[in-house]
Amino acid sequence: MVRGALRLDEFARIRHWTAGRQSPEWLSERGVVVGIGDDAAVVEQPQGTGPLQWVLAVDTMVETVHFNAVTMEDADIGYKALAANISDLAAMGAVPRHALVSVSVPPSFGPERMRRLYDGLYACAERYGVAVVGGDTTSSPAGLVVAVTAVGTVEAGKALRRSGAQPGDAVFMTGPAGLAAAGLHWLAAAGASGATATAAEAAGTAALVRAHRRPAPSVKAGLLLAARGTCRSLNDVSDGLASEAWEIAEASGVTMVLREELLPLSGSLAAYASAAGIAPLEWMLYGGEDYVLLGTIDADDAEAVKTAFLAEGLPFYRIGEVEVGVTPGVCLERADTERGGPHYASRRVKVEKRGYNHFNDKFGV
Amino acid sequence: MVRGALRLDEFARIRHWTAGRQSPEWLSERGVVVGIGDDAAVVEQPQGTGPLQWVLAVDTMVETVHFNAVTMEDADIGYKALAANISDLAAMGAVPRHALVSVSVPPSFGPERMRRLYDGLYACAERYGVAVVGGDTTSSPAGLVVAVTAVGTVEAGKALRRSGAQPGDAVFMTGPAGLAAAGLHWLAAAGASGATATAAEAAGTAALVRAHRRPAPSVKAGLLLAARGTCRSLNDVSDGLASEAWEIAEASGVTMVLREELLPLSGSLAAYASAAGIAPLEWMLYGGEDYVLLGTIDADDAEAVKTAFLAEGLPFYRIGEVEVGVTPGVCLERADTERGGPHYASRRVKVEKRGYNHFNDKFGV
Repeated sequence: MVRGALRLDEFARIRHWTAGRQSPEWLSERGVVVGIGDDAAVVEQPQGTGPLQWVLAVDTMVETVHFNAVTMEDADIGYKALAANISDLAAMGAVPRHALVSVSVPPSFGPERMRRLYDGLYACAERYGVAVVGGDTTSSPAGLVVAVTAVGTVEAGKALRRSGAQPGDAVFMTGPAGLAAAGLHWLAAAGASGATATAAEAAGTAALVRAHRRPAPSVKAGLLLAARGTCRSLNDVSDGLASEAWEIAEASGVTMVLREELLPLSGSLAAYASAAGIAPLEWMLYGGEDYVLLGTIDADDAEAVKTAFLAEGLPFYRIGEVEVGVTPGVCLERADTERGGPHYASRRVKVEKRGYNHFNDKFGV
Repeated sequence: MVRGALRLDEFARIRHWTAGRQSPEWLSERGVVVGIGDDAAVVEQPQGTGPLQWVLAVDTMVETVHFNAVTMEDADIGYKALAANISDLAAMGAVPRHALVSVSVPPSFGPERMRRLYDGLYACAERYGVAVVGGDTTSSPAGLVVAVTAVGTVEAGKALRRSGAQPGDAVFMTGPAGLAAAGLHWLAAAGASGATATAAEAAGTAALVRAHRRPAPSVKAGLLLAARGTCRSLNDVSDGLASEAWEIAEASGVTMVLREELLPLSGSLAAYASAAGIAPLEWMLYGGEDYVLLGTIDADDAEAVKTAFLAEGLPFYRIGEVEVGVTPGVCLERADTERGGPHYASRRVKVEKRGYNHFNDKFGV
């Protein structure tokens, strides 16, 4: 690829993929002063808001590392790349507002596939009201690389960090975990010819596949929690429940105690795990990319928050409590010491600090 | 690479490369409320400033497309990836403030090389007062990919766009162009064993090599121009003088007339071009990545601005004027119709809308 030619025709191509996707009025309502097409974008604080702080996150998806042709359709790649970033903003209690997209494109990924990638990206942007304000397209020697930066706002001083958990807090989640990992497991097993939407419907794994391909970041939940003022720590479950709980435990210097019987278990996950002969708890603890929120909250407010969530149609699961951590860590209180086999012999077991190697077990990357 | 393991140890690695590089006090002075280490960064408007708008840019550098082991040392990659983004902010008249960095790392690029990449990145950050507030590190199947998002601020309504050029404006540059392309030419010719600093000193190409590897974005110039109020259009010369002039011409609907005798010609460039038997004008017009600014300004203010620039130790070159553009375009008024050969036969020649294929001519990418 000739760099000079690429750069000159990059503007035409970016215009082709982005023009008309978001109207000037829609962008203007979202504080966009200058959008795609200049050296940089210019955005401003929305009218009529009090003092705000700006929340910034970057996340990258790489072909063969995070996805391949079996696990993700082209539109899903764009959708998920943005959704994962929006989830990082949600985990701070922020309103997502703007995004910038860098795509490095291998020779194998032609213009039609790029259009589909942008279709998915803009579908996610529309769903969450995010203005796409910048882009850069380059060649890649091998493997598609999509790096998205998301920009949001939070009321000054209200951002929710992972370091504020206190002993006595209730531990909660805003949805079940493990679905995305189970969906990926099914996709990998179905393989290149079998991983179709029809096949997923037939297999009862459509919800799992959707969780993997089109995650739904908990933006409304994050906003409710930030407004409430009683949420002490918050993470999104990008790397698995165990991993995120460890992050809160270490950042806050506490022990997180999760109660197995309180962990939300999706019916789809239970059914597929049973058919696959895999303990659902493995996916629930160590499967990543679910993008629900995990946090801790003043225990006295937990029931009221749950009620407030339900009134908004949002799930809220109280799954454990925070204890003093002499050395920070994460424990699981087992509901039934028999269940799960001999390695769960004690009632309180330590949760390993690891993610689930779901992708690479299957593809050997 | 195992994704789960990578993600868990990513935090440790990012901490290793970033910890202690910028002190909490230094970051706080730059409006950083939450830096690296949470789901997202939180930044705020500096104290005591009036209404600001936020300026956002993303730019990506890819191994074998933008650089290779001959043309760039590891530290240069980090330095230039950030500098190119800062230049985009400078071209809007913005103060650079924050940056987020996504690095996709191939197996060939080990931890020591990553440390050097970050050394260069932070050297640039310190030079321009930019707080590095976010990062993402992933594996790459082949080729290093560095995507940087830069965030700055501009006084509300003062951002300088490329679309405001008016007939009668003076065209100016804030430095000579073509050095980076000539530097790259020398590096490619010197090859793997010869492209050393000592060899560059001996060959008299050190300034050219430095222009390619460690560009100096025109931040102060951009701020002066934004404050002045008479600058009508502005671009940074990332893709070559011709290409950027075309962008302004098309965005503004004007003809840009450049005068050959007014184009700043660096002594190093002239000497190397003569030795290499290449017309310097080719590099000056079509060489990219110089990161000086090109713009247009109310002609009545041009001399006063030049004086103001010189008082700050900044170069300012008036290089032409804006004419009515029936169809927008870029012309060169030749100083000497003999110079340069038969394709420059007429006194006013059309400048091609292209970049210089400097890299790929040499490496066949």
